[in-house]
Amino acid sequence: MKKEYILPAGFASAGIHAGIKKSGKPDAGLIYSSTPCRAVGFFTKNSLKSVHIRHAMKAVNGPIQAVFANSGSANVLTGKTGVTDLEAILKKAAEILLIKPSAMLGAATGKISKPLPLKNILANMEKLAGAISARDKSFPGAIMTTDTVEKYASDVITIGGKKVVICAAGKGAGMISPDMATMLVFCMTDAAIDRKLLRRAALEAVQSSFNRVTVDGDMSPNDTVYVLANGEAGNKEIKTQGTDYIKLKNALKGIFYSIAEDMVMDGEGATKFIKISISGAKTQAQAELVARRVANSQLVKTAFFGMSLNPGRIISAAGQTFADFNPEKAVLKFNGRTALSGGRLDEKNRVAAEKELKKRRIELELNLANGKYGCYLLTSDLSYDYVKINADYN
Amino acid sequence: MKKEYILPAGFASAGIHAGIKKSGKPDAGLIYSSTPCRAVGFFTKNSLKSVHIRHAMKAVNGPIQAVFANSGSANVLTGKTGVTDLEAILKKAAEILLIKPSAMLGAATGKISKPLPLKNILANMEKLAGAISARDKSFPGAIMTTDTVEKYASDVITIGGKKVVICAAGKGAGMISPDMATMLVFCMTDAAIDRKLLRRAALEAVQSSFNRVTVDGDMSPNDTVYVLANGEAGNKEIKTQGTDYIKLKNALKGIFYSIAEDMVMDGEGATKFIKISISGAKTQAQAELVARRVANSQLVKTAFFGMSLNPGRIISAAGQTFADFNPEKAVLKFNGRTALSGGRLDEKNRVAAEKELKKRRIELELNLANGKYGCYLLTSDLSYDYVKINADYN
Repeated sequence: MKKEYILPAGFASAGIHAGIKKSGKPDAGLIYSSTPCRAVGFFTKNSLKSVHIRHAMKAVNGPIQAVFANSGSANVLTGKTGVTDLEAILKKAAEILLIKPSAMLGAATGKISKPLPLKNILANMEKLAGAISARDKSFPGAIMTTDTVEKYASDVITIGGKKVVICAAGKGAGMISPDMATMLVFCMTDAAIDRKLLRRAALEAVQSSFNRVTVDGDMSPNDTVYVLANGEAGNKEIKTQGTDYIKLKNALKGIFYSIAEDMVMDGEGATKFIKISISGAKTQAQAELVARRVANSQLVKTAFFGMSLNPGRIISAAGQTFADFNPEKAVLKFNGRTALSGGRLDEKNRVAAEKELKKRRIELELNLANGKYGCYLLTSDLSYDYVKINADYN
Repeated sequence: MKKEYILPAGFASAGIHAGIKKSGKPDAGLIYSSTPCRAVGFFTKNSLKSVHIRHAMKAVNGPIQAVFANSGSANVLTGKTGVTDLEAILKKAAEILLIKPSAMLGAATGKISKPLPLKNILANMEKLAGAISARDKSFPGAIMTTDTVEKYASDVITIGGKKVVICAAGKGAGMISPDMATMLVFCMTDAAIDRKLLRRAALEAVQSSFNRVTVDGDMSPNDTVYVLANGEAGNKEIKTQGTDYIKLKNALKGIFYSIAEDMVMDGEGATKFIKISISGAKTQAQAELVARRVANSQLVKTAFFGMSLNPGRIISAAGQTFADFNPEKAVLKFNGRTALSGGRLDEKNRVAAEKELKKRRIELELNLANGKYGCYLLTSDLSYDYVKINADYN
């Protein structure tokens, strides 16, 4: 796995400024495959869903050949205009690319309730389609909002003697535009694989990466992961969960986890990358509850920002979940240094534990000492800049 | 109901500095009744409970004559020392007050894992007990931590021709010390009332006040509400849920709601007081879920701090609960001004709605248009100062 944006065989992409963002920065991206792809999509569970998701939930089942993505407007709560805008955009792109409109998917991120500047987008579609290239590096930049770095990764594996490339570009967790947390991921591969198996492998990769990320506990109406497979690598189609399937799945997992880490590292205002590892829970559900409550506690997040040793806030957050554990028996460690055990601060390790909190990467291990279940979550701290980004934008 | 601290007949109190806070500010308070009280208590549901709560959950059932309260240390995660410290404190106070130790309750707020300075407290107990007075005004100040104002209210009602006084002092929601959210409330009345009815009336008052407050969604290990009734008003004991009961209950409700409002107004770093009113929910549980998710969303809270019109964040927060509603049908108002309806911003009212957001008090009304259930919550915004108070305290 490499942190590079290398397109698989048959894919081309581009990113340009299409008059959506006032800043003049890139805000429209296009992905194109020379042959139709099997596609799968994973979407936000929020009852409030962007226009593109409501469209894609059906469209993704057909053969897909291109994806139009924009930043600058989330196309959410835009009424009927939002729906006709998306239709017009996909139709225009399909015309220029000489494909059916039904072979198009959309994706959007940015401010909620801000209508798309349709005229600008349509006027720039020729330019965007003309810019696509198999050596493109501009797509990942066009989907950024409050992201400060581009996020992508790729891998090259061998399946049945054939070189198979998998590549994904993503944009950040943490609120985006200045309006809403949005995670968008576009994954492309030239592998030939049965669609059901593609979905299964991608789902497993999503669950161990993007579904283990929380920056602020706020779920966006736009969260989308697309995976497109065009089969141009020429491998014998993967039809079973054998070695080839596992190879591909592991590559997807590595790429997705890398992008998920990048999203947390680049979380809005984040100064810390925190891996929360829960163990010793009585049930899997309790492990999850504790991990999410600790990760999303404002008290815990501000303590990490302040780099202060605050085991009480963590045990107290865990205690709010009504998970079955005895706070007196729980053990809490930071980067392997015990901070709390036996119901009180571990004074012997205090200096060592405090030192770990100054680091950029912190693993918080909480053993509830009451069972065999565990899980992890990736999160960030709560800083002045988080408040600034999300309060100051009038 | 008046925002005054007027002790009922037979009660006396005091607050002094007893060497717990380094600042030298008042940190120890004592409440005393000349006759034993019927007492009821309501405690945090956090699995992590302070030493005083673990003690009081049993002790509160016996006749109670005095309460010792301290700020500066929460006496949580203090190991066995915390337990023996509390025992020694209650024993010492009981000795001086010439009552049984079993007639004492404790209460604590402040930093977690910080041991109590037992020696200082014991050395100051004579002074504290000597300071108690029926005209005291110093108790409410002694229980403050990051509170910026004292919080109390009282009411005088007539029951069976007798004057009955109810008075309560409280301390804030929002994190306290600089370590943990703690809400402590001490309510005293000279009413004669059956203990079961006292509990019932107080529970209803707690549910419509303190249980409707959320500053940051973090539940403290120390939250405590005590209600003590000594019967010295000389009214005929309230034994049924008749007029007298209702009078007393309503007085309790008014006092508790007033203190709950004060807690939110004085929430850590708060610049806004926000009443969130949900209506049109399909079930009561869904109304509650939506209210809590909206109130605790970092995105919503930072938008209020920024005084920016952000209906999308609110609808998106509601949508995360999986409550049954159609975002296109929901109606959102700020102080009666419609901000969103029909799935898009109400542009006509935009300026008026934005003006409301500049005010200190804001009522957010969200009608989910899918049923008859509703509820309200009181909350505050998320500001730089919140982050500062909870991050900077090493």
